[in-house]
Amino acid sequence: MRPNTALRAWRAGKQTVGAWLAIPSSFSAEAMANAGYDWLCIDMQHGLIDYKDAVAMMTAISTTNTIPFVRVGWNDPSIIMKVLDAGAYGVVVPLVNNREEAERAVWAAKYPPLGGRSSGPARVSFYAGDGYQEHSNEETAVIVMIETKEGIENIDEILSVPGVDCAYIGPSDLAYALDMKPTGDNRDERHQQVCMELYEACKRHGVAPGMHTGGLEFTTKWLKAGFQMVTMGSDMNAMRAKVQSDLATVRGDTGVQPTIVEA
Amino acid sequence: MRPNTALRAWRAGKQTVGAWLAIPSSFSAEAMANAGYDWLCIDMQHGLIDYKDAVAMMTAISTTNTIPFVRVGWNDPSIIMKVLDAGAYGVVVPLVNNREEAERAVWAAKYPPLGGRSSGPARVSFYAGDGYQEHSNEETAVIVMIETKEGIENIDEILSVPGVDCAYIGPSDLAYALDMKPTGDNRDERHQQVCMELYEACKRHGVAPGMHTGGLEFTTKWLKAGFQMVTMGSDMNAMRAKVQSDLATVRGDTGVQPTIVEA
Amino acid sequence: MRPNTALRAWRAGKQTVGAWLAIPSSFSAEAMANAGYDWLCIDMQHGLIDYKDAVAMMTAISTTNTIPFVRVGWNDPSIIMKVLDAGAYGVVVPLVNNREEAERAVWAAKYPPLGGRSSGPARVSFYAGDGYQEHSNEETAVIVMIETKEGIENIDEILSVPGVDCAYIGPSDLAYALDMKPTGDNRDERHQQVCMELYEACKRHGVAPGMHTGGLEFTTKWLKAGFQMVTMGSDMNAMRAKVQSDLATVRGDTGVQPTIVEA
Amino acid sequence: MRPNTALRAWRAGKQTVGAWLAIPSSFSAEAMANAGYDWLCIDMQHGLIDYKDAVAMMTAISTTNTIPFVRVGWNDPSIIMKVLDAGAYGVVVPLVNNREEAERAVWAAKYPPLGGRSSGPARVSFYAGDGYQEHSNEETAVIVMIETKEGIENIDEILSVPGVDCAYIGPSDLAYALDMKPTGDNRDERHQQVCMELYEACKRHGVAPGMHTGGLEFTTKWLKAGFQMVTMGSDMNAMRAKVQSDLATVRGDTGVQPTIVEA
Amino acid sequence: MRPNTALRAWRAGKQTVGAWLAIPSSFSAEAMANAGYDWLCIDMQHGLIDYKDAVAMMTAISTTNTIPFVRVGWNDPSIIMKVLDAGAYGVVVPLVNNREEAERAVWAAKYPPLGGRSSGPARVSFYAGDGYQEHSNEETAVIVMIETKEGIENIDEILSVPGVDCAYIGPSDLAYALDMKPTGDNRDERHQQVCMELYEACKRHGVAPGMHTGGLEFTTKWLKAGFQMVTMGSDMNAMRAKVQSDLATVRGDTGVQPTIVEA
Amino acid sequence: MRPNTALRAWRAGKQTVGAWLAIPSSFSAEAMANAGYDWLCIDMQHGLIDYKDAVAMMTAISTTNTIPFVRVGWNDPSIIMKVLDAGAYGVVVPLVNNREEAERAVWAAKYPPLGGRSSGPARVSFYAGDGYQEHSNEETAVIVMIETKEGIENIDEILSVPGVDCAYIGPSDLAYALDMKPTGDNRDERHQQVCMELYEACKRHGVAPGMHTGGLEFTTKWLKAGFQMVTMGSDMNAMRAKVQSDLATVRGDTGVQPTIVEA
Repeated sequence: MRPNTALRAWRAGKQTVGAWLAIPSSFSAEAMANAGYDWLCIDMQHGLIDYKDAVAMMTAISTTNTIPFVRVGWNDPSIIMKVLDAGAYGVVVPLVNNREEAERAVWAAKYPPLGGRSSGPARVSFYAGDGYQEHSNEETAVIVMIETKEGIENIDEILSVPGVDCAYIGPSDLAYALDMKPTGDNRDERHQQVCMELYEACKRHGVAPGMHTGGLEFTTKWLKAGFQMVTMGSDMNAMRAKVQSDLATVRGDTGVQPTIVEA
Repeated sequence: MRPNTALRAWRAGKQTVGAWLAIPSSFSAEAMANAGYDWLCIDMQHGLIDYKDAVAMMTAISTTNTIPFVRVGWNDPSIIMKVLDAGAYGVVVPLVNNREEAERAVWAAKYPPLGGRSSGPARVSFYAGDGYQEHSNEETAVIVMIETKEGIENIDEILSVPGVDCAYIGPSDLAYALDMKPTGDNRDERHQQVCMELYEACKRHGVAPGMHTGGLEFTTKWLKAGFQMVTMGSDMNAMRAKVQSDLATVRGDTGVQPTIVEA
Repeated sequence: MRPNTALRAWRAGKQTVGAWLAIPSSFSAEAMANAGYDWLCIDMQHGLIDYKDAVAMMTAISTTNTIPFVRVGWNDPSIIMKVLDAGAYGVVVPLVNNREEAERAVWAAKYPPLGGRSSGPARVSFYAGDGYQEHSNEETAVIVMIETKEGIENIDEILSVPGVDCAYIGPSDLAYALDMKPTGDNRDERHQQVCMELYEACKRHGVAPGMHTGGLEFTTKWLKAGFQMVTMGSDMNAMRAKVQSDLATVRGDTGVQPTIVEA
Repeated sequence: MRPNTALRAWRAGKQTVGAWLAIPSSFSAEAMANAGYDWLCIDMQHGLIDYKDAVAMMTAISTTNTIPFVRVGWNDPSIIMKVLDAGAYGVVVPLVNNREEAERAVWAAKYPPLGGRSSGPARVSFYAGDGYQEHSNEETAVIVMIETKEGIENIDEILSVPGVDCAYIGPSDLAYALDMKPTGDNRDERHQQVCMELYEACKRHGVAPGMHTGGLEFTTKWLKAGFQMVTMGSDMNAMRAKVQSDLATVRGDTGVQPTIVEA
Repeated sequence: MRPNTALRAWRAGKQTVGAWLAIPSSFSAEAMANAGYDWLCIDMQHGLIDYKDAVAMMTAISTTNTIPFVRVGWNDPSIIMKVLDAGAYGVVVPLVNNREEAERAVWAAKYPPLGGRSSGPARVSFYAGDGYQEHSNEETAVIVMIETKEGIENIDEILSVPGVDCAYIGPSDLAYALDMKPTGDNRDERHQQVCMELYEACKRHGVAPGMHTGGLEFTTKWLKAGFQMVTMGSDMNAMRAKVQSDLATVRGDTGVQPTIVEA
Repeated sequence: MRPNTALRAWRAGKQTVGAWLAIPSSFSAEAMANAGYDWLCIDMQHGLIDYKDAVAMMTAISTTNTIPFVRVGWNDPSIIMKVLDAGAYGVVVPLVNNREEAERAVWAAKYPPLGGRSSGPARVSFYAGDGYQEHSNEETAVIVMIETKEGIENIDEILSVPGVDCAYIGPSDLAYALDMKPTGDNRDERHQQVCMELYEACKRHGVAPGMHTGGLEFTTKWLKAGFQMVTMGSDMNAMRAKVQSDLATVRGDTGVQPTIVEA
């Protein structure tokens, strides 16, 4: 079976950099997969991506060695099993609040006796190669998101659930949990302190700490802080940041005015 | 009928900045349409975009005031008529070599008596509003690409075809035509000289000169040179340039090494 | 942020007319959006429409000022959040039986502190414009369907849930709840009496009363009765009614007999 | 092989009524196929329908006995062969101007020795049943559109091409050909006279005369005039006519004003 | 209403042979539907098939008399109702553990008063013909999968739930339940004994016993054992088995070596 | 640049075995790509596959080392260039009749100065890796189909066109050309003799001889005859052959009768 190089890196104490995929296109996914990230996460929660898109995008990622993850929309065994059957090497489960929910995520992602995943690998048997069902429990990453008040409070019980590989912070929802505005790359001290407390909890439990960011600055910041699964924005963020910046520069340098009035 | 603000700008001697769309997604198209470009061109020639994608992308662009163009794959009346019916306000026709081919493009894009476009606007009647068929001959841009040896030689006969609104240079194919390597943003003197000769021909014939570029630097350069339809790269170029640059910076600043070996 | 003109109308005591969309096509959706309805509701419960279709249809509706709603298939936070992120300005939640279920719907549709909606607007930030996350709790309509025995019995507790904007009657399921055949446009006195009792309950609680209909006659009837969110059939109903009626007329007037035998 | 009941009806001197399909959806196609038309024509020329849509729509039509035709975008052998392989029992070829073009259409639609259609039925072998390749030349309708000046002038040479089964008038393009505005259901005397001259030419050559209409009134009119392939509008026309009429009635009867301002 | 010939066969004590569909394509589905199976089951659990694919595939199957079933991904009323509205004549519900879960499946599949299915047949009203809502409770098959420890233990309470038509064994998950490796076509004695015990339980309760197999050998075996709903592999299994076998034969007979090295 | 192992094998005098893909699905394509063929050819001529499907299928094939070819629907430079940009390593061009048509195919597939392919690799630059534009003229296979009377007559002028890599026989169309019924795997002596004459012509011109077959028997036969590009049926053929044979066996062995009557 093809190894999960991202998961193995975490287990070896190494850090990884990845990106979020929000554009429902196998072409942009393939471009991102050729950019040198360690992993990519297809976002079925907040992007416009549905299952069919995710399959096409996983196929595109599979033309490279970049590891494909999927963030599912909900902690729902049906979709967790379905994206794993389609080729995901890890699932990111949003809004995990307590031990029971963490166990539910693990249960869906692991074959018996560790969990209750139903037998029937489909596309993943092509991607993973021989021995998938024997070894997938070892190579499939379960990544729980910590981003709610309950999740923060119950962090130790969540991280002590066997099979949880990574605790990934969603800083924007975390801001809501801290009664702040939903800022993603957040400079607030209390926010950052909570992130570091979660980091410490991960270290206590031997779980890889993860962090979502909007791009370069915070990616660097949190990698330097030791986080192991750190996101550098998304396909969509990168595209928009670049075109807005460059267009402003071009209009500034040339004085060419817009011919449209924004609706 | 909704006016073609890009075409009217050219007629008024103004310059415009747009971008190419290569990702077959209405979501990335809608993001690009909200970025402040004067127009966007959906690339059905070299991107992975087919007709169905193009319709979805034109719909997305129609939520804004940005003008939608389509580059068709070939100087083929069937597809020219079909993208116009679906909402394109202009067609970019590649590889136009001579007067006959320019006339063929105009013929397909204009209703009688100017051309032979078949009657049957579909989606465009929603986009354009009342009076589409009466006024579309005035508001539909015909943009011929000049990028072959023959096209360069026959530039005056091409530009004298009534109904040709813009001559758009494809610098990479133009390089082939000049027996060079297919470099897009081309610093070669002869290449640049030919571009300026084509620019002068446009000025002689009252046709807007256009230029494709890969991004910021050449967009600025050719706008300063007076080109009126200047492209600032594409959705795909912008995304890739940004992530490759930022990922290199992050890896450099943090020393976090790749965990994958490129296939 | 773009205002929700339908929701604001209800708050101002005004009435609105909309339609259901059952055909999974952005083209028919765009046609319907240009017809002059106040709102359109994309039916993900009983139509053949999946999430991807719904996104395309919302995009098409966004080319106009008609307000897009989505009826989700179930009172499921995951899909409620996902259609809102994609551009819905309101969700219609079927089969709401009690306070807890109404609260669950509101929880999914509202950002903290009112609810638990996860942060991550995607397409809706293009549609709504600046300030979406600050103001969306005010502009997002939560429409609960009252159509079960339990729902009728618990109407007061349902309507007293803060954040419920409209109680929408599904007359066909309501007929089942009253132990009748599932007739939509229902002339039965008891059925109509229950509808009016639900209407009165809405008035007591300051919630807009809504009613589904199959077309013209009942739309008029229920608007005259004061309902504020009244549906005039669907794209599919309109198409079928028209072609069946006209075809019968043509065959009758001309005597041209069918050449096919129905399977 | 399943018989082409529409084509056989024409050969038997009978009249048929059908409709155009402009909405790219198998669901609306299946609804239309259950409405009692003799045939349906999937419009790949002016609708938003591409090949993939057409395949899905033909599949839906195949659940009934209604005969599926396709109007291709152009007189192009490649697409003619491809829609026949996918299950079309007839092709409508637009803008046929002369004998050569009529022969080209027939050539593409017929297997050797009558034509040059390449061997390789795909889906059509399921639809047609046993014996498709032996009998398809007899059961596949070739319908040429007469709608240009040249087409009118060359009507006799066009209709004398063996294998042309029907001459179908596109009244809107025909109006252009007569230097009129592109009105479809056309009350102009000269327009109607030309239509009847084409009808007479069909009768001279044993070819079925066909006519496109926007709906009820002209369908009846042209059936009474003897046309054999008469269209009664389209899915889209029917839907729009119905909702616009009913919405005006509802707003008129109830006084409920629009809450949106059209963009 | 069109009868459910598979369900009626079971009620009459007859046996049926069907196949699983794992390839998300209406074309392969239509080919399979023309092969002579009694029913086909579209697999939304382990295949790559989403709802949109399932609709297209049901449409394709509807061109024949083969009965369409759908295996849903989870015992979720929303998707059960949605596939029935789209044309499924039966649902296969995985991982049913106890009476409550069996009741939940039946509740979703039956209209009141037997269940809670919401009123709104969409495509199925075309497929089934007149009288669908009156008769669908009689013609819609509810097939529960028995494949977990709990399911085996609770078999009598599950089978005594009114409305359960068939108990279908998933042998691979059943192997997990018996603490074996997840072998599908299983020669283990204990596995086979459990299957026969489940068969006997079905006979006690008047429920049709069903069995999944990977192909020919076990299909024959379990039909001979009396099972009434027996699967003969899948589209994907058949394709792969054939090409692997034939390619090995060809390479062996000709000595033509592979030119690629497997990745 | 990734080498074209199939083309290089031909140049080295080796033989290859591949298959045709007729099912428009990336999943079946990925399954076929894992089966051990040297190459796969996506059929855009007679299958139901459009450009968008072909892109998805090429992406799936790219997860393996199997070489992707595309048979285009027509000798049309636009689509030839577009499938190459999307990742095809070879094009199969049907119905090539003479030198001019062969030159046209080569012109479309080769960059200047050998041809007129427009510059703008899209997805293929990911698949091929660095140096695509420099080396693609060497690694892109041009495969012309010989299957018409004219093609047979002009075989020497066709094969002498520089850039033609393979002459591929379509035996079913070839049968039409020989005034026979369109049998694919053809036992007729004259048919086989013509095939061998074409083989000899290939040998004279240093062009690889290719042959289409329906499966095992003729694949072996023509490989033994020395053909270098030999097809072993298709995904669809394999699936159908297997299920029909196995179902007949099962029904025969068990006596279980069909419960459906074929439509």
